[in-house]
Amino acid sequence: MAYPKPSAALLARLSERLGPAGFSVDPADLAPWLTDWRRRLTGSAAALVSPANADDAAFVVALAAAEGVAIVPQGGNSSMVAGATPAGIGGDGEGEGGGGGRALLVSMRRMRTIRSVSPQDNAVIAEAGVVLADLHAAVEAQARRFPLSLAAKGNATVGGLISTNAGGTQVLRFGPMRSLVLGVEAVLPDGSMLRGLAPLRKDNRGYDLKQLLIGGEGTLGLITAATLRLVPAIGARAVAWIGLRSADDALALLRRLEDALGEAVESFELVPAEGLALVLRHIPDTRAPLADSHVWNVLVEAVSPSGGEPIEARLEAVLADAIERGFAADATIAASEAQADALWKLRESMSEAEARDGIAAKHDITVPVADMPAFMARAADAVIARFPGARPIAFGHLGDGNVHFNVRAPAGGDGKAWFAAHAAPVSRFVHGLVTQAGGSMSAEHGIGRLKRADFLDLVDPVRLAAMLAIKDAVDPKGIMNPGALLPLAEERRRP
Amino acid sequence: MAYPKPSAALLARLSERLGPAGFSVDPADLAPWLTDWRRRLTGSAAALVSPANADDAAFVVALAAAEGVAIVPQGGNSSMVAGATPAGIGGDGEGEGGGGGRALLVSMRRMRTIRSVSPQDNAVIAEAGVVLADLHAAVEAQARRFPLSLAAKGNATVGGLISTNAGGTQVLRFGPMRSLVLGVEAVLPDGSMLRGLAPLRKDNRGYDLKQLLIGGEGTLGLITAATLRLVPAIGARAVAWIGLRSADDALALLRRLEDALGEAVESFELVPAEGLALVLRHIPDTRAPLADSHVWNVLVEAVSPSGGEPIEARLEAVLADAIERGFAADATIAASEAQADALWKLRESMSEAEARDGIAAKHDITVPVADMPAFMARAADAVIARFPGARPIAFGHLGDGNVHFNVRAPAGGDGKAWFAAHAAPVSRFVHGLVTQAGGSMSAEHGIGRLKRADFLDLVDPVRLAAMLAIKDAVDPKGIMNPGALLPLAEERRRP
Repeated sequence: MAYPKPSAALLARLSERLGPAGFSVDPADLAPWLTDWRRRLTGSAAALVSPANADDAAFVVALAAAEGVAIVPQGGNSSMVAGATPAGIGGDGEGEGGGGGRALLVSMRRMRTIRSVSPQDNAVIAEAGVVLADLHAAVEAQARRFPLSLAAKGNATVGGLISTNAGGTQVLRFGPMRSLVLGVEAVLPDGSMLRGLAPLRKDNRGYDLKQLLIGGEGTLGLITAATLRLVPAIGARAVAWIGLRSADDALALLRRLEDALGEAVESFELVPAEGLALVLRHIPDTRAPLADSHVWNVLVEAVSPSGGEPIEARLEAVLADAIERGFAADATIAASEAQADALWKLRESMSEAEARDGIAAKHDITVPVADMPAFMARAADAVIARFPGARPIAFGHLGDGNVHFNVRAPAGGDGKAWFAAHAAPVSRFVHGLVTQAGGSMSAEHGIGRLKRADFLDLVDPVRLAAMLAIKDAVDPKGIMNPGALLPLAEERRRP
Repeated sequence: MAYPKPSAALLARLSERLGPAGFSVDPADLAPWLTDWRRRLTGSAAALVSPANADDAAFVVALAAAEGVAIVPQGGNSSMVAGATPAGIGGDGEGEGGGGGRALLVSMRRMRTIRSVSPQDNAVIAEAGVVLADLHAAVEAQARRFPLSLAAKGNATVGGLISTNAGGTQVLRFGPMRSLVLGVEAVLPDGSMLRGLAPLRKDNRGYDLKQLLIGGEGTLGLITAATLRLVPAIGARAVAWIGLRSADDALALLRRLEDALGEAVESFELVPAEGLALVLRHIPDTRAPLADSHVWNVLVEAVSPSGGEPIEARLEAVLADAIERGFAADATIAASEAQADALWKLRESMSEAEARDGIAAKHDITVPVADMPAFMARAADAVIARFPGARPIAFGHLGDGNVHFNVRAPAGGDGKAWFAAHAAPVSRFVHGLVTQAGGSMSAEHGIGRLKRADFLDLVDPVRLAAMLAIKDAVDPKGIMNPGALLPLAEERRRP
């Protein structure tokens, strides 16, 4: 099914309602938003539509629904899987950009009001277009913290973070976005408003519909605002860098830290020796945190509440004990905030250092935490055997059983040519390995458009059938974000 | 639509597959399970069917689906809202009990295997019929804790706890059941198996289908097993009883405790002076914890991890400061486990003491935490004005914004007659008040059959339409737990 182009009458009504700040068909206005974050896909759209409030958003969806016109919701356009790019919608001239496409690209960036911060309720109500960094600042001003952070915090918006069930560096303690959403306001695909912003901690009135919108990748509705859970501001933090002899030792260390420090442990990030070397080589102003090189390194952050005992001495005691017992080789604790930031910079520069070193097929995978050390080794061996010369590297959120398992082009050759020829089969191979191991081919990035083919290849048919039944029930015309996550109509006709 | 009776052939196939331990039409076998926990409804069923494993469960559902026969899933039969009672299914002779009804009462109580406990993954895989108390014991043997507990723990099963998104006394720290479910295995209404037990901390492969089964009250599928999150065993706990001058002071105390102790605060339970008096009057071996009586009392439990500093001194410091600043009147900290248990007994005996004092219309309501002190006062006044002589009392999980707001019959009269005449209108009135205040008429008990009428009266039509669309998509024949949560077919025909 090709989606219809919006009628001239529809575009006129949008233009009239939203005005020049909220409606454009000018290719120059559209161009910046038609290519995905990783520059893998460029699409096209009939218009860029930017509602200023929830009523406007409902108006847009209702008009589109009446004509069966496709809607692609977009927040900060920082999807790692092209989940917010209007590409692949039947009948579009792909790669041409600008107006003339069939979808309405609905940008939520104008809806950036923080409607309320309630320290008493430990809750904030933020509109979909609020940028994560702005949200952090707004609640910190009230001695509260929104405990989810990630590299794209200067771009990622509340609506996008919810629609992708974003993760980040504090999932170990606080869970992903799903754990932090108390309520959602959204426009359903027929234009009706689902209103649920009351900051309730418990509500057992039947199906928790917001759970479908969380991680739904914009395919079931357009989120306009959300109520998010806050926690008290941190009192003190302690950041340590630990050198290890094996990934198994990393797991033993994690469980020891949790037993001793409870939920004070917020981050447990794994960096291999090779990853640290890449960072030290490519990223300015970095230096090795320990005297020797270690096969594996872990960055740990632990925090204490504002009125509590500082956590540093307790962390130090656990690490000393771990070295004594032999499951840590060496460790250092940051003596200042500047040192703590420097340690974090080593971890957070991994992706950039890797990118500077050459092109790679990237995977965001998870298996059960206890299985990850063995899986990383097994998967690396299997990739090298199948794709000679390829160089796998794994790093990231070991505490969640989630690593970024990236496969770099062979050293010295033409990386781009290798990538063009091998990236897709490498990814399909890695996604197959992780699925066989009972894991997930998407831990935190979602499926979007870039991983749709592999997902549809590997998904349990029972699960896909249930997802499609729900999609068809909630969005019978299939107008919401077609081509992301789920098959396009023509793909569903396949046997 | 009246549901058909299962054919003789269907019953014969069930009997053959499940054997005498898993199949009965003997009224004596069925009788104990046909009346709900609160003895408000008695239904009937064609057979009691008890699968021994997931394949059996899928066999049962597939057979029922083929004939369109209704299934009522049941765990410990401890629903507070008759969610697991086969009553009201079109064509049944209600109240007659035994065989001869139309539904299959599918008891999950034979599926009580704990398939695995993994301390490394902080996860347990338990079948649907595992009783909560048994689950606690099994994971404690591995130095882990399943941090959800409630009064019915000797009866409530894993499947029922998930289907009702159960709460309890530790929601403040760990959230309700939804926060603790990592994976679910379930039979969908067409008999297909949804397999998702891998203990993954992150998985963003599209719609999180288990979220619909959690709190779905058995209307979308039959849960056969689940993977549940564990946390390290407690090191030490401190339990305090605090006397307060106002409910507002209780909130101020809660936020102060959270700021100072972080997530160490696990429970924050409210007991009014009148509630404590009822307990002291009706429950043997109880004594007043403080010298004077206080308008409001709060029970606080705070814990520390096994290797951490004991929490008692820190809790004591916060309470001393609260008394100094004037938002606590008096406080005592248990000096032993026996004293801690004695304080908890005061809180946990509230329902029993109230029941011994006379009959009451019970409500399980929530509003935003910060609004609860004012709401309790306003709602009590409104109830008394509308139903002269009625005696409201509120107690419970103030930290979650959730209280049990019960309305007792006027003193001295015929309680049962009052209840028969007024309980339904009182409940409808209270549910209306809480809905108007942006709250929920079911914080943790669910809707079931007892609250269905009020729920359908008060629910946002957009929300109900979406719920029905999902129900019809996943269970097109409407065989799963008809009459719980959602309208029966004949009720849906109303305009």
